[in-house]
Amino acid sequence: MADPRFFVADGPFTLARLAEVAGAKLSAGADPARQLRDVAPLDEAGTDDVSFLDNKRYLEALKASRAGAVILHPDHADAAPDGAALLLTETPYKAYALVAQLFYPATEGVPGIHPAAVVDSSARLASDCRVGPGAVIGSGVEIGAGGRVEANAVIGDNAVIGARCRIGAGASLSHCLVGDDVVIHPGVRIGQEGFGFASDETGHTKVPQLGRVVIGDRVEIGANSTIDRGSGPDTVIGAGCMIDNLVQIGHNVKLGPGCVVVAQVGIAGSTKLGKGVVLGGQVGIAGHLNIGDGAQIAAFAGVMRDMPGGEAYAGAPAVPVKQAFRQVAALARLANKKSDT
Amino acid sequence: MADPRFFVADGPFTLARLAEVAGAKLSAGADPARQLRDVAPLDEAGTDDVSFLDNKRYLEALKASRAGAVILHPDHADAAPDGAALLLTETPYKAYALVAQLFYPATEGVPGIHPAAVVDSSARLASDCRVGPGAVIGSGVEIGAGGRVEANAVIGDNAVIGARCRIGAGASLSHCLVGDDVVIHPGVRIGQEGFGFASDETGHTKVPQLGRVVIGDRVEIGANSTIDRGSGPDTVIGAGCMIDNLVQIGHNVKLGPGCVVVAQVGIAGSTKLGKGVVLGGQVGIAGHLNIGDGAQIAAFAGVMRDMPGGEAYAGAPAVPVKQAFRQVAALARLANKKSDT
Amino acid sequence: MADPRFFVADGPFTLARLAEVAGAKLSAGADPARQLRDVAPLDEAGTDDVSFLDNKRYLEALKASRAGAVILHPDHADAAPDGAALLLTETPYKAYALVAQLFYPATEGVPGIHPAAVVDSSARLASDCRVGPGAVIGSGVEIGAGGRVEANAVIGDNAVIGARCRIGAGASLSHCLVGDDVVIHPGVRIGQEGFGFASDETGHTKVPQLGRVVIGDRVEIGANSTIDRGSGPDTVIGAGCMIDNLVQIGHNVKLGPGCVVVAQVGIAGSTKLGKGVVLGGQVGIAGHLNIGDGAQIAAFAGVMRDMPGGEAYAGAPAVPVKQAFRQVAALARLANKKSDT
Repeated sequence: MADPRFFVADGPFTLARLAEVAGAKLSAGADPARQLRDVAPLDEAGTDDVSFLDNKRYLEALKASRAGAVILHPDHADAAPDGAALLLTETPYKAYALVAQLFYPATEGVPGIHPAAVVDSSARLASDCRVGPGAVIGSGVEIGAGGRVEANAVIGDNAVIGARCRIGAGASLSHCLVGDDVVIHPGVRIGQEGFGFASDETGHTKVPQLGRVVIGDRVEIGANSTIDRGSGPDTVIGAGCMIDNLVQIGHNVKLGPGCVVVAQVGIAGSTKLGKGVVLGGQVGIAGHLNIGDGAQIAAFAGVMRDMPGGEAYAGAPAVPVKQAFRQVAALARLANKKSDT
Repeated sequence: MADPRFFVADGPFTLARLAEVAGAKLSAGADPARQLRDVAPLDEAGTDDVSFLDNKRYLEALKASRAGAVILHPDHADAAPDGAALLLTETPYKAYALVAQLFYPATEGVPGIHPAAVVDSSARLASDCRVGPGAVIGSGVEIGAGGRVEANAVIGDNAVIGARCRIGAGASLSHCLVGDDVVIHPGVRIGQEGFGFASDETGHTKVPQLGRVVIGDRVEIGANSTIDRGSGPDTVIGAGCMIDNLVQIGHNVKLGPGCVVVAQVGIAGSTKLGKGVVLGGQVGIAGHLNIGDGAQIAAFAGVMRDMPGGEAYAGAPAVPVKQAFRQVAALARLANKKSDT
Repeated sequence: MADPRFFVADGPFTLARLAEVAGAKLSAGADPARQLRDVAPLDEAGTDDVSFLDNKRYLEALKASRAGAVILHPDHADAAPDGAALLLTETPYKAYALVAQLFYPATEGVPGIHPAAVVDSSARLASDCRVGPGAVIGSGVEIGAGGRVEANAVIGDNAVIGARCRIGAGASLSHCLVGDDVVIHPGVRIGQEGFGFASDETGHTKVPQLGRVVIGDRVEIGANSTIDRGSGPDTVIGAGCMIDNLVQIGHNVKLGPGCVVVAQVGIAGSTKLGKGVVLGGQVGIAGHLNIGDGAQIAAFAGVMRDMPGGEAYAGAPAVPVKQAFRQVAALARLANKKSDT
């Protein structure tokens, strides 16, 4: 069960309620009135807990689990331990997400501005915002209903932040328009000048960076990631994008809606991603490129040219994933030959 | 035009003035007294705006642009739209930089120390410095004329910062000597202990890190980058270096003047870069290496040995760029053969 | 010598004392009563300084050094300059570490909570803790003896921190249990939600992240690194691990004791490292993998599958290091052929 130092569970809830929330079917013989008290991983769950199986790597943990109920795909029902009630669904991870949200709804906290925060008198914050100690909110800033600015975060002059956003501890934002339900994790840097200068033998002449960062609704940005403002055009993060930790997004980059960007990815200036593009960890993408809708780029890849949508790519320089596999295999064979003549 | 929430344009300026500032020649028939009110990207510019073309990828945008004036290379003059006055120059990007600086000079702000800053009484700040709320300035710190320390930045004891420097929100500096006209972006970490320890079967014994970080004039360091202090020798960033976001610079590294280091580069301890070295995004360089003057290392490369100056390199392990291209091509051919026997 | 702006040396100490502390043998003819005043690099040391040689790259600097004493391996004694007393040891780097610690013991500072810190009344801090200006310590937090929380760091509600820990400027911690003698460098982010969501055509459904970060004794975590809390299981950093700057550690990752993780490494969710694993700079490791005890993974590698312990690996995808070298050599030969038919 989750450590009560840090988490407080709602509940208990009946199996029937869980099945309803999860959009799952109860297995034959399961008692709909049975009460569950918490969620837990397969290897830690007890008879009062509901757990889940999403990744086949954990089938052994399923077999050995003492969980009172398990959310899983019907194909894996046979591997479940005898005592467990089953919540059967084609999408067990999403079903678990919904059940876990039921037990652990987002905490609300008490609205108010901490006396050690510094909020400019011209800033307009909805009355139910929470602002932590040491947070600094500049002139002309707007923050919508339910906003939360954590300790020591800094919001630059005239930034606009929608409803129900969370700005993490020590983050800094400037020159940005942020939608609703956005989560900015601790240490994120948004809106600073991009890396723009003209170089010649006299040195580097800085180019004023005159754009903004525009962030859609329901975006999440991971800890210590950096998003530079545009140089003239805006830098744009589409609605519903999920961005992990330590990601770099250069000036003028556009992300279509629903992209997934895993940790330590770097996207150079003026590159455009379509809808639902997925970038694996540590991927790098050169500047001024177009990556099509639904393209998937495997971890560690380095992308040097435009990539059509709907395909998977890997390698550095990145190529279609089948070709990348062939290259890896061919090189392994070549290296293992006694002689290469 | 730039969003007036965040930017206020000077001007208007005549074409003649812009040509003078840009070091550009007016095209035949352009009226030197014509007034321009702002800069804007080709696809957003109107008849009162001046735009620019630097990258051939945007020739189509040039043709369709409604810009009142365009800064561009004479070779592209024919592609410009009929209505536009042309500012012709061999270096359009630098010319644009100078024009944009004219419209958007660095804002000065009002000098003063915010009452919510914490400045040690022994610190010596020039009288025209600006210190934001929550900034912490330690004992013995010196900051030169025109210095600006943004909200919640932390300057450790005895650090020395030259004239006209900007220290971004939430950055932290210690054990450093910083030159004039340096820009430190938000979240940068300078001067913490390097990664030094002696390992044996009893564990890791820490080596005291007794050097400093010495930063030359006109250096710029991107958001959330990290520069460790030396272990005994100093870590040195030469004058005029441009360093992007999320870059890691290990202890004792030396960068010659004018280097360009793109985002997410890592330079391991005690490596030395000559003058004007350019490192593409995500490049990694192993420790104790020498990279010669003017070397250019392509994005994603991994450098494992010394690299003579004046050449371009790519790949991991990095090799001269022509050799890297041959390797990529050879591997692609090999993988595409029906059989590799 | 170290810059007295930033460092104050103890001493002087006799050669006899240094030999004892270093576990080294004095060379014949060296005067045990000779006094040394400081440590210094070979090329900067004077006759009152003790220096060291650990890396053969610096043999020339040894020959030219004016150091009064040098710590080095007996095999290199012949290369030492005539005037220098030698401290002979099989482990010169560790010996130097111990001598440097003698000259530069960790500074203690004056206990106390700065009036500009914000410490919740329910937090329990040992009486000799130091809390800097702007630091924010939440409700129910516990910090052990000798703890030090630097300026503008943020400790979330109910976090537990052991004895003699240092939390760097601007770092943020939440949902974590931290052991004794841990060093968290500036800007580190610990305990934020991991990157967990279930995706389908309706978008990304967030999975509540209900685990913690558990950090063992004597761990060090470099500047601006990020460690997400577990999703249900904990994220665990074993005792004595050394983690460099800008490292990303995903939810549920486990590091065994004594691992070394160089800068910009990324470890994806649920991967497990054994004891004493070493990861070079910029290494990436995919999720749900097992890396065995003592495995060593070279800089820039990308690990896509389980790796048995006790071996060295390189490349992307990573393979045993000998195989990686053969691949590099084979590709170089292939690319250099006039024709590849």
